[in-house]
Amino acid sequence: MANSYLDSLTFVRQNTPLVQCLTNSVVMQVTANVLLAAGATPAMADTPTESAEFAAVANGVLINVGTPSAEQYLGMTQAIQGANKAGTPWVLDPVAVGGLSERTRFVEGIVDKQPAAIRGNASEIVALAGLGAGGRGVDATDSVEAALEAAQLLARATGGVVAVSGEQDLIVSTNRITWLRSGDPMLQLVIGTGCSLGALTAAYLGATAQTDISAHDAVLAAHAHLGAAGQLAAQQASAPGSYAVALIDALYEVDVHMIASLVEVYEA
Amino acid sequence: MANSYLDSLTFVRQNTPLVQCLTNSVVMQVTANVLLAAGATPAMADTPTESAEFAAVANGVLINVGTPSAEQYLGMTQAIQGANKAGTPWVLDPVAVGGLSERTRFVEGIVDKQPAAIRGNASEIVALAGLGAGGRGVDATDSVEAALEAAQLLARATGGVVAVSGEQDLIVSTNRITWLRSGDPMLQLVIGTGCSLGALTAAYLGATAQTDISAHDAVLAAHAHLGAAGQLAAQQASAPGSYAVALIDALYEVDVHMIASLVEVYEA
Amino acid sequence: MANSYLDSLTFVRQNTPLVQCLTNSVVMQVTANVLLAAGATPAMADTPTESAEFAAVANGVLINVGTPSAEQYLGMTQAIQGANKAGTPWVLDPVAVGGLSERTRFVEGIVDKQPAAIRGNASEIVALAGLGAGGRGVDATDSVEAALEAAQLLARATGGVVAVSGEQDLIVSTNRITWLRSGDPMLQLVIGTGCSLGALTAAYLGATAQTDISAHDAVLAAHAHLGAAGQLAAQQASAPGSYAVALIDALYEVDVHMIASLVEVYEA
Repeated sequence: MANSYLDSLTFVRQNTPLVQCLTNSVVMQVTANVLLAAGATPAMADTPTESAEFAAVANGVLINVGTPSAEQYLGMTQAIQGANKAGTPWVLDPVAVGGLSERTRFVEGIVDKQPAAIRGNASEIVALAGLGAGGRGVDATDSVEAALEAAQLLARATGGVVAVSGEQDLIVSTNRITWLRSGDPMLQLVIGTGCSLGALTAAYLGATAQTDISAHDAVLAAHAHLGAAGQLAAQQASAPGSYAVALIDALYEVDVHMIASLVEVYEA
Repeated sequence: MANSYLDSLTFVRQNTPLVQCLTNSVVMQVTANVLLAAGATPAMADTPTESAEFAAVANGVLINVGTPSAEQYLGMTQAIQGANKAGTPWVLDPVAVGGLSERTRFVEGIVDKQPAAIRGNASEIVALAGLGAGGRGVDATDSVEAALEAAQLLARATGGVVAVSGEQDLIVSTNRITWLRSGDPMLQLVIGTGCSLGALTAAYLGATAQTDISAHDAVLAAHAHLGAAGQLAAQQASAPGSYAVALIDALYEVDVHMIASLVEVYEA
Repeated sequence: MANSYLDSLTFVRQNTPLVQCLTNSVVMQVTANVLLAAGATPAMADTPTESAEFAAVANGVLINVGTPSAEQYLGMTQAIQGANKAGTPWVLDPVAVGGLSERTRFVEGIVDKQPAAIRGNASEIVALAGLGAGGRGVDATDSVEAALEAAQLLARATGGVVAVSGEQDLIVSTNRITWLRSGDPMLQLVIGTGCSLGALTAAYLGATAQTDISAHDAVLAAHAHLGAAGQLAAQQASAPGSYAVALIDALYEVDVHMIASLVEVYEA
């Protein structure tokens, strides 16, 4: 049981899940490259006219509210409806929620549409649970530990898995709390690593949907994959340009045994 | 004759063609870097208020329907009008056509506006010719061989060159069929290599418009340039992060002699 | 005095200025990575509903009109109002102004809203001052020397600092003219280096706003930081793919002493 989450990677690489990303325009390219390197296939169909149709054929959907235009908001609402109708798991990344009023209202309107997972930093999770005011732009000002109660509230309210990214990651379901120690501080100096993790989470949920791997383990595995790759990249590079390149290489090269030896997982 | 297409590269590097890209937001950055490395200059003027005006000064125009917003659709229609009025060659990349209804309708409405070239994967070309249903998102589910009839239909209908990307590339005009063996499987693991090839095709068409190089040879040369660079990159890198870097380097460094020795061209 | 501008880098790294970028979609990712590598934090809040609100908490704002949609135009107008109300310095990058009529009208409508700095190539600065017709897309067709008069006109009209990028950079205030010799020709072959310099200028202005460093020195320092990094990168790489990676590394690794030894500054 303790390591069963690790099997998820095999399913990602076997099934090449198609991940529909409705995400901010800053990170589209790196998100797509992360998915390709990890073993998934990206598609960014995010317009109102196509997003519902596409969500029915995708294996997973990411809703990331980083730079939403009015049209993309409509596309997100449509994609969620399409995903829920087709049974496609969708992941919510509530970027900078709490700090900005328009996106806060929008996210509050979709958080009860049964996301399979929510992934954010501590300040975003705290704000989304109504327990705090959010961070500074994309930077968290709360600790991951301080977000535990908020994560539990959200897990109960949505029925989904809630993941808090930070120095340690916290994965919370209604009946399970897991801490993950992995990654490297250099990940913060490359744009889009957090946003890509949301997409990778959708890939893992999609790839394991027809297996006996739980959504909790799928979310944990996505975080462990990126975290371990972040550690491997730090062995190759010590500045952010070459680190970004090494990170994509490591996402592609890392295997289950390397992940198991690099990350630490604690059930609480 | 057999190798005359190779001269096109010289014209690209001498003329620095200005390529207007109306393309999806996922690949804008990599497309621009591919053009710069190859010897062209990118500009992404894609709004309805500017795209026709810009198409008149550009040397080539790319219309890639990967993530079209309503406003970008208008911009594309304007750019095509501006290009045709000014005699600027434009290239159609019908991303995921067939699989999604809105973009399929849009592409069907512009394919008869005389694109100088159409570039897509086998499933897109088959769907565009009305012979199949399209692939899975951006992935082809038809073989290049199976797209030959569709490419010929489209070449006759549009009067332009039709290029099918795949394990081997197929370049088709009304009176000529050329097969190109080049590239490397790793190209599939870097986002935007196909989309960039559409932009590079526009660069080659623009750079050779005033020469005696045929449009068929210009399209072939663009594919050979990217394919050869893909092979050179594979000699440098075996994972997608470093491969993407090596690919841009190779696009810049490759010369006519290296291309001639790396790729295989067959006239059918 | 002569080298006081160099102290600005220390403030950037100490204060991690939050830079709101309303910029073109081609360069968002590289701009964000440049800011992170240099010591700042990026945020791309550019919609009309959020941009004014965000400009009040940001330390600096970039307005880059490279691929403006109608919605982003509104967002820019809002952001400028929010920035001016909150006293947040904002930087104008008038990409391709003069050459395209819609953006030229838009830029003419905001240039008198007190930008702390304007950064462009020679043709853009000349066109913005009403002294010429602009360049070819993003390429300058005027020399930096020829833009001196235009820069002085704009500095007097706006009260801000005007920076002209080129083989040598020119930094102009109402009472000061500085020439900077730095950089490397390879910078032209990586997309977004000029646009990122606009964002970096906003970072430097924001980080030094509460210090006794002048806006002129802050702008100069941003240019020297990128220019020196460009020189360091050229020692590592001779093709644009690896050069782009080395540039980000160098932005992160370069220190005040290296900058001082790499660049040449002349007061005119």
